[in-house]
Amino acid sequence: MSAARLDETTRGVFPISATPFAPDGALDLDSLDHLVEFYLARRVHGLTLLGIMGEAPKLSPAESRAVVCRAVGRVAGRVPVVVGVSSPNLSALAALANDSMAAGAAGVMVAPMSGIVGDDALVAYMASVIGAIDAGTPVVYQDYPQATGVTLTVEAFHRMVEVFPQLVMLKHEDAPGLTKLSRIRAEAARAGRRRVSILVGNNALYYPQELARGADGAMTGFSYPEMLVEVYERFATGDRDGAEDVFDVYLPLLRYEAQPGTGLAMRKELLARRGALASPTVRAPGLTLSPDDRRELDRLVTRLERRLKA
Amino acid sequence: MSAARLDETTRGVFPISATPFAPDGALDLDSLDHLVEFYLARRVHGLTLLGIMGEAPKLSPAESRAVVCRAVGRVAGRVPVVVGVSSPNLSALAALANDSMAAGAAGVMVAPMSGIVGDDALVAYMASVIGAIDAGTPVVYQDYPQATGVTLTVEAFHRMVEVFPQLVMLKHEDAPGLTKLSRIRAEAARAGRRRVSILVGNNALYYPQELARGADGAMTGFSYPEMLVEVYERFATGDRDGAEDVFDVYLPLLRYEAQPGTGLAMRKELLARRGALASPTVRAPGLTLSPDDRRELDRLVTRLERRLKA
Amino acid sequence: MSAARLDETTRGVFPISATPFAPDGALDLDSLDHLVEFYLARRVHGLTLLGIMGEAPKLSPAESRAVVCRAVGRVAGRVPVVVGVSSPNLSALAALANDSMAAGAAGVMVAPMSGIVGDDALVAYMASVIGAIDAGTPVVYQDYPQATGVTLTVEAFHRMVEVFPQLVMLKHEDAPGLTKLSRIRAEAARAGRRRVSILVGNNALYYPQELARGADGAMTGFSYPEMLVEVYERFATGDRDGAEDVFDVYLPLLRYEAQPGTGLAMRKELLARRGALASPTVRAPGLTLSPDDRRELDRLVTRLERRLKA
Amino acid sequence: MSAARLDETTRGVFPISATPFAPDGALDLDSLDHLVEFYLARRVHGLTLLGIMGEAPKLSPAESRAVVCRAVGRVAGRVPVVVGVSSPNLSALAALANDSMAAGAAGVMVAPMSGIVGDDALVAYMASVIGAIDAGTPVVYQDYPQATGVTLTVEAFHRMVEVFPQLVMLKHEDAPGLTKLSRIRAEAARAGRRRVSILVGNNALYYPQELARGADGAMTGFSYPEMLVEVYERFATGDRDGAEDVFDVYLPLLRYEAQPGTGLAMRKELLARRGALASPTVRAPGLTLSPDDRRELDRLVTRLERRLKA
Repeated sequence: MSAARLDETTRGVFPISATPFAPDGALDLDSLDHLVEFYLARRVHGLTLLGIMGEAPKLSPAESRAVVCRAVGRVAGRVPVVVGVSSPNLSALAALANDSMAAGAAGVMVAPMSGIVGDDALVAYMASVIGAIDAGTPVVYQDYPQATGVTLTVEAFHRMVEVFPQLVMLKHEDAPGLTKLSRIRAEAARAGRRRVSILVGNNALYYPQELARGADGAMTGFSYPEMLVEVYERFATGDRDGAEDVFDVYLPLLRYEAQPGTGLAMRKELLARRGALASPTVRAPGLTLSPDDRRELDRLVTRLERRLKA
Repeated sequence: MSAARLDETTRGVFPISATPFAPDGALDLDSLDHLVEFYLARRVHGLTLLGIMGEAPKLSPAESRAVVCRAVGRVAGRVPVVVGVSSPNLSALAALANDSMAAGAAGVMVAPMSGIVGDDALVAYMASVIGAIDAGTPVVYQDYPQATGVTLTVEAFHRMVEVFPQLVMLKHEDAPGLTKLSRIRAEAARAGRRRVSILVGNNALYYPQELARGADGAMTGFSYPEMLVEVYERFATGDRDGAEDVFDVYLPLLRYEAQPGTGLAMRKELLARRGALASPTVRAPGLTLSPDDRRELDRLVTRLERRLKA
Repeated sequence: MSAARLDETTRGVFPISATPFAPDGALDLDSLDHLVEFYLARRVHGLTLLGIMGEAPKLSPAESRAVVCRAVGRVAGRVPVVVGVSSPNLSALAALANDSMAAGAAGVMVAPMSGIVGDDALVAYMASVIGAIDAGTPVVYQDYPQATGVTLTVEAFHRMVEVFPQLVMLKHEDAPGLTKLSRIRAEAARAGRRRVSILVGNNALYYPQELARGADGAMTGFSYPEMLVEVYERFATGDRDGAEDVFDVYLPLLRYEAQPGTGLAMRKELLARRGALASPTVRAPGLTLSPDDRRELDRLVTRLERRLKA
Repeated sequence: MSAARLDETTRGVFPISATPFAPDGALDLDSLDHLVEFYLARRVHGLTLLGIMGEAPKLSPAESRAVVCRAVGRVAGRVPVVVGVSSPNLSALAALANDSMAAGAAGVMVAPMSGIVGDDALVAYMASVIGAIDAGTPVVYQDYPQATGVTLTVEAFHRMVEVFPQLVMLKHEDAPGLTKLSRIRAEAARAGRRRVSILVGNNALYYPQELARGADGAMTGFSYPEMLVEVYERFATGDRDGAEDVFDVYLPLLRYEAQPGTGLAMRKELLARRGALASPTVRAPGLTLSPDDRRELDRLVTRLERRLKA
């Protein structure tokens, strides 16, 4: 039932899936089925569960497993599924990773716990993570210092690529990060190092530039994943201008959705308006949208639709 | 079986209990029984479970409940027990709070989740917490901005004291925090506001000064809780110089244990040396002590014991 | 020679002026004359000197005065000029403020020094600033917590508006900041408080939304200030859709320029390409552009020009 | 007139000198003469001007030079004088460094400007600093991430020691920092690297441990520099227990003075009480002591003096 596991050649768009809740905050697994179909109908190349946009820290362990089980089951091998398993509790991290792989996931994503300073400590932390999970589990390193406070130097990443064969992908979302991405690609090529997959996060705000610098796709939660797919595909076939034209049409909404703090509520609102979610509920405690916010979304969507028609 | 619940008049020393693990990282509940007796034999006035020093973020929900159940059962009403329940997952927070109170806890401690900015947002967050837990549960607000990144202004604290009758205690560990403590006491007295209990954390580094400024005791994890008790009692009977003499004898070790990062490993090492823990194991991932660290602990303990004899 | 002073009714676009340096890093005052004309030719409503984008912390006091003197002289009263005077050295701050006003500036801009925590401390700090500068000097408060680490609550801003009649403008660049902007406008109106001018910074990334929420213009360093002016003017005449159309055309470049870290180098590069600066030199130490960065700028400018022609 | 320049063999106590101000905030150079004699009478091995405790960011360039000139002149070669020259303005940094060396300083101290991330960027920054100042100027690297936000990895420090022969000293004040200090000494010895001098800051809170781990002395602003000297000398002659006994006597006051925020005001107050400063004035804006603070200082000093007599 599972798709092939992640490896260094994995490419494409792996949206960060929202986690559906009923208006009372209960997990809504029926809506999750529907959401999976929404993403697959937009021809995504994979799916990412339990990311930060998936409100992972607000789920109980049992709920996390229920989400993985249901979504992987519904996907039914059509695309690979990555599961975010980050936790300061190493055995909880390992248990969720192992259970997810057993359920048919294609790999797990790990952001380092807060408080790690220095290359050595970071490599040691990843060694303890990789030692704790089942051998051979493909691992995605999530480089998101804005949330974790942990700096990934290019040198540390090269070291991890050398010593951890399971590390097959970087979720790149340091900001500013364009130079880091270019350095990783150039230095690895020069040194004959293993080339790993790099998918970009950070709301895809620099997506065309990142593809040109050697990224292999995107792993982010924009509410119109079909844009991420179309840009990727045009780029892959050499139509860079066409890719950028498509990106630019969506950019006014994309940059608005990318606001720190309210972004998640906006994405769930738009996914609900698009019929992908039964309810836009964000689990408490979380920001809610003001009437001004909703009016701005209305305008931006109206303007987007007008441009898409043109 | 439970002691009286926390209220505004609660005073004394409520150490932050370590959580015992076996060398393989498994929870060691038998050692927890022993540790409870260790604390009670030092005549503490209460006990605090699942604080940051208790490695709470590394426990599964089931393990957290097991710790609460076992410790509260062992205490058997001899002193009140506070349980740390902080979590970004509001329903997990509420469930642990309610289960702990049902098991006989005297109150729960909450530090706000990261990312809250501004007085209004903080008061709203605490309203959502207090709305989610059983009515009448006594609440301790933990003011620890060094870890949470959340600022508690004196104004916001006054507002919370007014609107939340359940809020009966402040765990004071902002740093520098002496002025904040003095302002809370002076302004509340001037305005005729409810006087809540204040216990101090921050490794008790300013304990004599804080008692003189209106603190009612300590809630911290120093490995010699008998010092915290003796200072409190001498202070309570007016022997301020004697209190400070005792504090000063322990200060070289106390300031060493208070190092960020390694402090937890040092405390567990000393508790193990003192026979309070079967093993000094810190759950992975966590810092371990170097041979230099151990040698320094040896020296400091030897010097402390020499002075205690003198 | 000076234009009218800033007051609560000030509106429009006050770009943050770059500071021109020769390739060897020396201040280039001739180029500053030219740059002033560049801005005025784009029909800006004012000018802001010595902001963060103006590399103010890299200038000596004598250089700062030279910049103010030369630019104010060149502007010759055609538009009001605001001068950034922030400094941890209060007497240096006051001296630069007083000298700037004597030279013909219309007002001064102050961001609080780092390390201030809490509303009271912030109001006290602004009182010490306003007490140190000449009476009657119009003051702009720069709310830029990403750089200063200082939080401005809405409550503290209302207090400052009440007690400091000199405070006539807010440079709004908290992020996310839309809700804060709406709250300031709504609460001040409800309470019958003085309505101050609000110009937006933060690279104008949410400019159309901010105008709709009550901002009076922009104070930021985008390399095409004519866009900022045109959007402002269309908005002022009620053509909101037209304003947003213009904004969207520039957005791909604007969001690229707004990258933290490299943004300043990009702006100076573009100002130099446009003939506004003799050299794009950023004073050392500062980031320089890579060949990849330059290629991306080439593409974005080519695409912008193509769209402007269409 | 100048003492020998700093080099790798420099050892001992180089207190961070306060900067004396008159009650109205004016620089008080006569009091500086007196303060220099106060330090020298306590048999310090050197002196450090314009550190953070010296309120360097609050001085104008002319005042900074006046302080250096007067203090170096007064010292008159009796001990080496280090001058803090950190600034985001590289040419201001270089000018102050060169002027200080010309005036007879023994070396300059540099903390990296905020915003530097990663080993490469840090080494490049130090290369630009060392390239900008006169050849052969001895440089002290100040590792104080709590204030700068810049992380110095052990690897980066080794690289700098290799490529910059001018780098002769580390001011060590990362916290926790004991492991870093041990690693630097052990790895440099193993690799046969140049051994540089290391003096410790951070209020000397771990001074005996740091001396045992290979530090060569202290560079900090404790108001009783004679303690720093006596501990250093006893340690140097092998009397480690005696050194630690002396340290422990002062520790209650030392840990109190080390409070972030108020520490500077406390030190100036104590230096004034001891007759070393004519006035305890901290230049505005700065924290002032409350009556509670003063009472606590009274008690701590009384208790210290009682113990010193015993």
